[in-house]
Amino acid sequence: MRLDISYDGREFSGWARQTDLRTVQGEVERVLGHLVGSHVLLTCAGRTDAGVHARGQVAHLDVTPEALEGLVDERRINRALPSDVRVKRVGPAPLGFHARFSALWRRYTYRVCDDQRGPAPLDRFTVLPWTRALNLEAMNAVASELLGEHDFAAFCKQRPGSSTIRALQAMSWERDEFGYAVMSVQADAFCHSMVRALVGVQLPVGDGRRPMSWPTHVLRARVREAGLTVMPPYPLVLEEVGYPIDAELLARQYVTRQVRTVVAS
Amino acid sequence: MRLDISYDGREFSGWARQTDLRTVQGEVERVLGHLVGSHVLLTCAGRTDAGVHARGQVAHLDVTPEALEGLVDERRINRALPSDVRVKRVGPAPLGFHARFSALWRRYTYRVCDDQRGPAPLDRFTVLPWTRALNLEAMNAVASELLGEHDFAAFCKQRPGSSTIRALQAMSWERDEFGYAVMSVQADAFCHSMVRALVGVQLPVGDGRRPMSWPTHVLRARVREAGLTVMPPYPLVLEEVGYPIDAELLARQYVTRQVRTVVAS
Repeated sequence: MRLDISYDGREFSGWARQTDLRTVQGEVERVLGHLVGSHVLLTCAGRTDAGVHARGQVAHLDVTPEALEGLVDERRINRALPSDVRVKRVGPAPLGFHARFSALWRRYTYRVCDDQRGPAPLDRFTVLPWTRALNLEAMNAVASELLGEHDFAAFCKQRPGSSTIRALQAMSWERDEFGYAVMSVQADAFCHSMVRALVGVQLPVGDGRRPMSWPTHVLRARVREAGLTVMPPYPLVLEEVGYPIDAELLARQYVTRQVRTVVAS
Repeated sequence: MRLDISYDGREFSGWARQTDLRTVQGEVERVLGHLVGSHVLLTCAGRTDAGVHARGQVAHLDVTPEALEGLVDERRINRALPSDVRVKRVGPAPLGFHARFSALWRRYTYRVCDDQRGPAPLDRFTVLPWTRALNLEAMNAVASELLGEHDFAAFCKQRPGSSTIRALQAMSWERDEFGYAVMSVQADAFCHSMVRALVGVQLPVGDGRRPMSWPTHVLRARVREAGLTVMPPYPLVLEEVGYPIDAELLARQYVTRQVRTVVAS
C-alpha cells in the first residue's frame, strides 16, 4: 500500500520512529496499526530530520488485502491523526513499488530571507533570516557547477558502509512572491544533512564572503570542512518524490539497492 | 513618526488595544512607551480583526524630535517586541502624513484550498479548507462586476454614523505555487468584515451552488443577508497600504475625513 503524506515538522523529532520521542513514522504507524488491528511498519522515501517539513513524502507498507480495506479511506485515517500530519492519498501500490528503492528522485526546497529586517512574523518558522544580501545569479552559477554524479562526502554525515555518491539533477535559486530566496534541489537521493550543507556552501558565496570557486573546492576535498555550516532544518521542505512508470518499479529497485562506487567525472 | 509593522495574528486579539487582551497595538505601544519614557498612542491604516495577519500594516504616532531619537532604530524596538510582531521600518513621517486618513488604498489577500484533501499541515493556520472545487474563472467574472464605488452595506457590520460606501479598486483570484486559490483585493478602504464577506459571496459561486448573478444581487440589496457567510479571519493578510506623494498627504486627509454619501453608478 502506498501513502502520500504531508506534515508540519516543528513538533516532530523527524520521520524515523524513536522510543519516547514524537515522530511522523511513530504517529502514522500508531494510527494505521489501530485501524488494522496489528503492528504495521512503514518505509518512506526520505527520512527527514527533526524539524524538517514535507508536502510530498511517500511511504509504503505491506498489508493483506483484507487489512487494506479498512485503510483505503484517507478521511478515516486523518480523523485519527493529529493536525500536523495528513495522509493526502492512500491506495494499493503497484507491483514492485518500494517507497525508498523505487524512487527516481527527491525534490526539496529551502527558503531564505536576505532582507536584514528579517522574514515577516508569519514566516518566521519556515524562512531562514540571513543578514547579508544574496546574489542569486552567483549562487545559480555555483549551483550548476555542482550538478552531476559526484561523491558528496564533504556534504554528508558519514555512515559506515554506505556510499556518499549521489546524482545531483537540478539545483537553482529564485525569488518568491515575498522576495525570499528559494532553493529548489533535486537528486536521485540525498545522504544525511546533504541539502542543508549544500545551502551552507552557497550562502557565503551569495553574500560575497567566499569566492565562486569555494563550493567545487569543498566538493573535491571529499571530507567535511570546518568552515562549512550545515544550515538549520526548519526552512527545509520535502516537496515531491518521483517514481518511474509501473513496469519499471522493480527494475529500479535493483539499481538503487547496489552500493555505488563509481563516480563519473 | 511612521512605522511599518508585520505580525502573525494568531495569538493577537486583533490590532486595537483592549483591556486585558493581547493586541498588536497594545504590544507595540507598550514597547515604544518604554523606550520613550511616556505613554504613546498609535494610529494604524487598517484595524485588523482577531486572527488576521499583516505583512504591511502602517501606523503613526506623534512624538517630539527628542523622543524620536530613541526610536529610529528598528533593531532596538524589535529586541523588545515578542517574535510574532516586527517593526520592519521606522522613521520620521513626512508633513501631513496620517496612517489612516492619508492612505489611498489597502490591499489584502485571502487563501483557500479547494482540494478536498485539505491544505498541507504547514499551511493549516493560513489557508481555508473548502471541500468543493472552485472555478476561478467564474469567480473572477463575478469579482469584476463588484468593482467600483458602491454602498457595501450588505458586506459590512453596520456602525452608526459611518458610511459603508467604498471604492473597490481591484479584486481577482489566482492559483499560487501550491495550487491554493488566492484572492487579492484592493479598495480605498474597507469597512468591518468586508473582505471576509466578499470572500463569502464569491466561494458559493465558484463551487457552483449560487448563480453568477448572486453577488451583485446581494450588493444591491444593501442589507445583510442570512445566506451570506463571513469567512474566518485566519487566512486573511493585510499585505500593503498605499499613500500619495508627500505633497498630497494633507489634501488626501481632507478628502477621506469627509463622510461619503454619494454613490456613483
